[in-house]
Amino acid sequence: MSASVHPLRPRDAAPSLSPLLALCAPGLHAVNTVILERMHSPVALIPELAGHLIAGGGKRLRPLLTLGCAQLFDYAGTRHHKLAACVEFIHTATLLHDDVVDGSDLRRGKATANTIWGNPASVLVGDFLFSRSFELMVEDGSLRVLKILSHASAVIAEGEVAQLTAQRVVATTEERYLEIITAKTAVLFAAACQIAAVVAERGNAVEAELESFGRNLGIAFQLVDDAIDYVSDAGTMGKDSGDDFRDGKVTLPVILAHARGSEAERRFWRDAMLGRAAGEEELRHATALLHSSGAIDDTLARARLYGARAIDALASFQHGAARDALIETVEFAVARAF
Amino acid sequence: MSASVHPLRPRDAAPSLSPLLALCAPGLHAVNTVILERMHSPVALIPELAGHLIAGGGKRLRPLLTLGCAQLFDYAGTRHHKLAACVEFIHTATLLHDDVVDGSDLRRGKATANTIWGNPASVLVGDFLFSRSFELMVEDGSLRVLKILSHASAVIAEGEVAQLTAQRVVATTEERYLEIITAKTAVLFAAACQIAAVVAERGNAVEAELESFGRNLGIAFQLVDDAIDYVSDAGTMGKDSGDDFRDGKVTLPVILAHARGSEAERRFWRDAMLGRAAGEEELRHATALLHSSGAIDDTLARARLYGARAIDALASFQHGAARDALIETVEFAVARAF
Repeated sequence: MSASVHPLRPRDAAPSLSPLLALCAPGLHAVNTVILERMHSPVALIPELAGHLIAGGGKRLRPLLTLGCAQLFDYAGTRHHKLAACVEFIHTATLLHDDVVDGSDLRRGKATANTIWGNPASVLVGDFLFSRSFELMVEDGSLRVLKILSHASAVIAEGEVAQLTAQRVVATTEERYLEIITAKTAVLFAAACQIAAVVAERGNAVEAELESFGRNLGIAFQLVDDAIDYVSDAGTMGKDSGDDFRDGKVTLPVILAHARGSEAERRFWRDAMLGRAAGEEELRHATALLHSSGAIDDTLARARLYGARAIDALASFQHGAARDALIETVEFAVARAF
Repeated sequence: MSASVHPLRPRDAAPSLSPLLALCAPGLHAVNTVILERMHSPVALIPELAGHLIAGGGKRLRPLLTLGCAQLFDYAGTRHHKLAACVEFIHTATLLHDDVVDGSDLRRGKATANTIWGNPASVLVGDFLFSRSFELMVEDGSLRVLKILSHASAVIAEGEVAQLTAQRVVATTEERYLEIITAKTAVLFAAACQIAAVVAERGNAVEAELESFGRNLGIAFQLVDDAIDYVSDAGTMGKDSGDDFRDGKVTLPVILAHARGSEAERRFWRDAMLGRAAGEEELRHATALLHSSGAIDDTLARARLYGARAIDALASFQHGAARDALIETVEFAVARAF
């Protein structure tokens, strides 16, 4: 992650998604066309509700990873456009169901679909997008891709249930937390990257490298997200600061602060995660403890570690614009909002 | 549907699922083994919640149709066991989400999963079963089967959203109602039957016959279900009579009674479906109107029509125990509880 691999970016400029976006602009246009075409349905509520979220300011990070990884091979085909759309559909279906599960009312700075159309519509449109993503994969026809993405979907759902089970239980271990975020976030990042190697027919070893790249990037991304939840506000991040706190979501910052806390602090975290003391004043106290205990800093240090692993996974790939853009994407994921 | 094709069943005996169950007993045992194995997860809540519904007294009608149709060809393989389990997983995922969408508290005479474990768990475990069903299909490896079942899943979800949109709108046409129940119910029956022809490699024409058999049976089945909702009680049917009425679900009996009603009766149905007058007294009045207008009888007459079409779709198959059992299954679906 030294600056020397990016001679074109000034040493003091913040890393951004711009290089990946510039590299993948034509591909992303093609992916967006597939997304718009295939979220269509004669049942008007489906494109309306899905469009609210899909058109609603998402970064398209997962499809961009598929596109960027395909660029590593100068892959000249178009199969990955449909598959990148699949990945975005799976992601969107997950978000719709997550917002129902969490009762969230704000995502990316906008009212959530469940707030506008209700939980039933969000559940069912999520199901539709999920099914549609499978139809798209089947059209592509690669059993290898189908295996990777169907497995990813099952692992995501399993991770979401595991997270629900762990909710409000503050004495979770860091290992268990890592298992959960790997399942619910990192496995789809990994699949998005790996399928680029599948369509470009690069074999198992290269697939494994991109899987590792995506998985470690996904873990880093989620760690930073979980830290951001305690230091952002709705204006900058599009979600309310403290959402995880109010929902009793036991993320790594809380696990570390709890483990390092005094008896009284541990009791505070236990009560807070159980929802017994999760008001604004408690959120301020929680944030102070997260900083004073080093929990936020150390969560970010771990994110940098996984980011470094992601970058190392690209070691054997040809140096060039694609690899540079993917490396800067990792740096962006780790550094954003700090 | 004359009794002469069933020389072994006494002329006055009610049709039942027994012949199909007897014919498919070893296959059903194998399917149940797959189901139990593959709903397992280290996340204990998944088998616990899924098992509540899967082990909870369902008739396994859809897997039985796959097994019974395979018997038409004396198919000797085992691929259909895994695929029948897929179909049951898709069905179970749909039920879990339906109960969340409808806020139901009783299914098959037992408390629903959402009542016991909450809506979030039901949504997420439904997602898991749905993903797991795709993993099972991918393991089978037939792109033809994947296409049929992924398309069926998307159509089901589309039908569920369409039903949600049509909810409480009493001036729905019979055609629109038929489209919705075809999507949300009959397409999975059709797929369950069609895939038996795919694994037995019988070609497009035979696939189309079994697709038609399943689709028409599914429509008949749903029509009877919608009539039963007004004439059963929880003791005999495992669901509360009048659930559809209370939920403002505009089913064919209501569409017919509304269309045939006086101005005052139409106003009654409109108010009732909007939830403005859906108490016990109104339910009694509704049931009386459904009988006096002939709406229940005519819904059942339509069910018999679709049942007859289902049986006609079997015309070209070899006469024997499998065909007889499938025909009696149609007769059972049409006649049950009356």
